[in-house]
Amino acid sequence: MGTVGQGVWRHLEEGKDAMQRRFGAEFELAKACVRDIARKRSVYIPAEKLTTNPLDILDDPEIDIVCELMGGTDAAFEHTMRAIKNGKSVVSANKAVICMKGAEIFEAASAAKVGYFYEASVAGGIPVIKIIKEGLVANRFTSIYGILNGTCNYILTRMEKEEASFESILKDARKLGYVEEDESLDIDGWDAAHKAVVLAHLAHGKWVSLDDMIVTGIRDIRLEDMLWAREFDYRIKLIASVKCRFDTKKLSVSVYPALVPLSDVVANVNGVYNAVSIQGDVVGRTVHIGRGAGQDATASAVISDIADSIKYLRGAPSDAPKYDSYSLDIARLEEMRNSFYLRLCVKDEAGVLAQITAIFAHVGVSIELLKQVKHPKEGKAWLVLTTHETDEGAVETLRKQLEDSKAVLGSPFVLRILRNKE
Amino acid sequence: MGTVGQGVWRHLEEGKDAMQRRFGAEFELAKACVRDIARKRSVYIPAEKLTTNPLDILDDPEIDIVCELMGGTDAAFEHTMRAIKNGKSVVSANKAVICMKGAEIFEAASAAKVGYFYEASVAGGIPVIKIIKEGLVANRFTSIYGILNGTCNYILTRMEKEEASFESILKDARKLGYVEEDESLDIDGWDAAHKAVVLAHLAHGKWVSLDDMIVTGIRDIRLEDMLWAREFDYRIKLIASVKCRFDTKKLSVSVYPALVPLSDVVANVNGVYNAVSIQGDVVGRTVHIGRGAGQDATASAVISDIADSIKYLRGAPSDAPKYDSYSLDIARLEEMRNSFYLRLCVKDEAGVLAQITAIFAHVGVSIELLKQVKHPKEGKAWLVLTTHETDEGAVETLRKQLEDSKAVLGSPFVLRILRNKE
Repeated sequence: MGTVGQGVWRHLEEGKDAMQRRFGAEFELAKACVRDIARKRSVYIPAEKLTTNPLDILDDPEIDIVCELMGGTDAAFEHTMRAIKNGKSVVSANKAVICMKGAEIFEAASAAKVGYFYEASVAGGIPVIKIIKEGLVANRFTSIYGILNGTCNYILTRMEKEEASFESILKDARKLGYVEEDESLDIDGWDAAHKAVVLAHLAHGKWVSLDDMIVTGIRDIRLEDMLWAREFDYRIKLIASVKCRFDTKKLSVSVYPALVPLSDVVANVNGVYNAVSIQGDVVGRTVHIGRGAGQDATASAVISDIADSIKYLRGAPSDAPKYDSYSLDIARLEEMRNSFYLRLCVKDEAGVLAQITAIFAHVGVSIELLKQVKHPKEGKAWLVLTTHETDEGAVETLRKQLEDSKAVLGSPFVLRILRNKE
Repeated sequence: MGTVGQGVWRHLEEGKDAMQRRFGAEFELAKACVRDIARKRSVYIPAEKLTTNPLDILDDPEIDIVCELMGGTDAAFEHTMRAIKNGKSVVSANKAVICMKGAEIFEAASAAKVGYFYEASVAGGIPVIKIIKEGLVANRFTSIYGILNGTCNYILTRMEKEEASFESILKDARKLGYVEEDESLDIDGWDAAHKAVVLAHLAHGKWVSLDDMIVTGIRDIRLEDMLWAREFDYRIKLIASVKCRFDTKKLSVSVYPALVPLSDVVANVNGVYNAVSIQGDVVGRTVHIGRGAGQDATASAVISDIADSIKYLRGAPSDAPKYDSYSLDIARLEEMRNSFYLRLCVKDEAGVLAQITAIFAHVGVSIELLKQVKHPKEGKAWLVLTTHETDEGAVETLRKQLEDSKAVLGSPFVLRILRNKE
């Protein structure tokens, strides 16, 4: 009964009559598990409905639906499995536990013939799970990508708007309570990675391990990168991406900061908003935008899952997704192709540009745009480039050769460019 | 079995194995009703499955689900009612028939305990019906607005991009087959109005008559309006809008060209794409973008309804929406407030601006921005203005007084400005 739990309780109680009509069923909020019964809450819960013992809920035969909104993985997993074994449907907002233990949970729910719903685990208030599972059921998905971490999007948006550094905005975001206690979950891309794993399984029936993913966060983004990207008509966003090629049966799931063309609506989704772009083989592209977190948006998603749990109790068939028989492999890094943005600190002297472009030519990476910028320090210059589409492997080679070149000072900074073909 | 029907048939046959797995059930495409059996089609249908007699489908007890993709109203209504009475679930893409006869159809379906699904009737491939009905079931909707007619959006987009006149692009759109046979359906806003009525009922349980709506199309939009709006940081879009005030219990449903702020993603949805912005009292704002028409996008929506029909046949409870007990009234024009854009052709002489601003002051409408532009003809000038928010009634008075003023030549041209408060 944290922030989201209190939101769910409040909206279900305040709107109870209307909700019951919309659900087509009556419900009763039975119990809430809290750490500290005496603590003041934003919603009134009768004392007799509060407990500090999860088993009071999990083992109560009167309870049909359990909402797991506690976060974390170990206890959450244990409680989820116990609820399922006790024949209860479970509604979860917990991407981490699905990412880590989804295979076991889904199997247990299917065996126990209970529902397991997780709309709130990805993209907050955007009903993206339902959209992919039901609304776009006619489709196979070649590409799903988007902004799935509101905290990173908030930081990047403010950096660009206020021309401020990553560190200064991060400090502010911490103060506002926008950053998870374990900061790395947000900033280093792990929260977005958990969500990408959930989407990849939903769309393709395959559990992808975090070890098989590229996961890069936004720590190394400098304000200058944002401004230069902007000059090239891009905006830098932390993008979670699930790509699937059906010809080669390769799946790749990744999270990295990318240059998104300003012409893509996703580039114009700012602040705490999330966006999900879905490319289906029948429908083409659809894009869905909404608040990615927060008490109310997440409560909206949890409540829709409660409605679906009720339908399930009333006889709706289980819609555990049944997948196509194709078996997908995880794409290796070298098999992927992308366009790239590079920021190099170079010696400010004659012949340097020739040396660097020679390295590009040698590795076979084609430069699209190039910009030289004054460096605040004497004797140095910034070189900013974008490339045409090329192999990831070639760029890795390029990066090493540039690093070894005497013309380049320090390490090249490399970002991917999102090229939406539609 | 027109364009959409052939798309549905093709995708269901080509992807049959995968679809059956995703649906959790087997299906068989039984029959297709056509006007001319001999005609060449984009999809192969065995001769014995073709018929020219709708009753071969409607009265066949072996058939569980009927897709009504014929368009029009009279015959479509008759066939729909017959299918329902014969115990079949119906999937429809027909906004016109729902707009005109929805109350009767929904009641008949409920009485016969069959499903009636209509995802494809609004916003093509965007699963907006499911999003509002299920994904956002926790919410009451204060504002739903968007671009619901792809043809108008295509024309407006090309006008602005190519700096071309309405007439020249319309001619091109006709050639490309983008315009309905009854052109007025698209151009004069009636198609969008039908869809707005469907959304208003879905969100609020109230059938709104076309007579109670403002419905204005895009015929009178001049290229200049688009360019001047752009200078003021707006883009002109044909907007369908369903607004509800829960304090005064007033509902207003309308279709008109509006100036949408460039900062709103809806302003950046171009070409044949549709967009729907949904403001819910719990979730906040979500926006959904996708192809609004076309064989494949519409087929995607029809197929998702077929999947839901199958779930219904397998025991899912009917989710005919149950509405809140509030009874909504239709807002009268005078009760609405908006900001406005005005284009006036005025005499190019001293004192004219003073006369015109005096009329604004007299009526009590506050000017926000004002721009004078040279008119190609000697002795005339264009005056372009935007106002602060004001009563619709005041603007009607203003329009009349401007029309009567000797300083103004011809009729003032007035558009609304969309002000999204979030």
